[in-house]
Amino acid sequence: MLPSSLDPAKKLYWEDFVSGSVVEYGPRHITREEILAFAAEFDPQPFHLDEAAARATMLGGLCASGWHSCCILMRMMADGFVLNSSSMGAPGVDEVLWLLPIRPGDDLTLRATVLSARASNSRSDTGFVNVQLELYNAAQERVISLKAPLMFGRRTPGGVPA
Amino acid sequence: MLPSSLDPAKKLYWEDFVSGSVVEYGPRHITREEILAFAAEFDPQPFHLDEAAARATMLGGLCASGWHSCCILMRMMADGFVLNSSSMGAPGVDEVLWLLPIRPGDDLTLRATVLSARASNSRSDTGFVNVQLELYNAAQERVISLKAPLMFGRRTPGGVPA
Repeated sequence: MLPSSLDPAKKLYWEDFVSGSVVEYGPRHITREEILAFAAEFDPQPFHLDEAAARATMLGGLCASGWHSCCILMRMMADGFVLNSSSMGAPGVDEVLWLLPIRPGDDLTLRATVLSARASNSRSDTGFVNVQLELYNAAQERVISLKAPLMFGRRTPGGVPA
Repeated sequence: MLPSSLDPAKKLYWEDFVSGSVVEYGPRHITREEILAFAAEFDPQPFHLDEAAARATMLGGLCASGWHSCCILMRMMADGFVLNSSSMGAPGVDEVLWLLPIRPGDDLTLRATVLSARASNSRSDTGFVNVQLELYNAAQERVISLKAPLMFGRRTPGGVPA
């Protein structure tokens, strides 16, 4: 699944993110303890903190906060390729879909797909990479999908598009 | 700023979220220690962990992970009204804009605006509330904006729209 354009042995620049590339990372095991710790700090709704309360809801049992799933995804992406890149962060996120609950004991795989890339309109040393980021559980069910424009430094600064 | 429709003394149901309502909560003080702790766990990019590395980037200094700002916003929203409501979570987020860095020492205010509301198409006991959620710093600069559909139980279950 790892195309040579995202070779993990070399530092990645904007030019390396080729439209259509797909990479996968993981699995990452999720524990009840981390679900509870995150919820206690950031999203203390009963269905993220209490098994009995969660069973009484449409969620059907304890599950991770949607924001926790975003943070887990971010860390998997950081370890996967962002920390070995010219990442400059992101101006935001275009869409987040929380599709299925993440449960204690789940093993999650990250799939990153390069949707498109373009040079910055204002900075000749910068480019944008639109990515779709998805987490799948061990049953190959998609639990979260998000789309975001990531900013990376260019290996070779070029002209700014007219 | 607190319309009677979001009276914090009573438990809130879907019917209480009237289009155009605006509520504010905070301020919430942000420490360097929590910025570093979050980044170490979820988003260990140098500009969220190291002052000198951050100064060398377009961010101009240490700042919170964008995901951290989402989590801070979630906790302020939970304490503000979600925990005293019939919240059923959310299916996702329509848009996240990370507009300005959140710095150590910032004091953040949450503004929640009800954009629209509609009954669920499939569940007579449920409704959606589209909200815009924004954090402002002490200089009244908007640092993050997001739009999301929140799900709430209805005080009085009604017919499902045809």
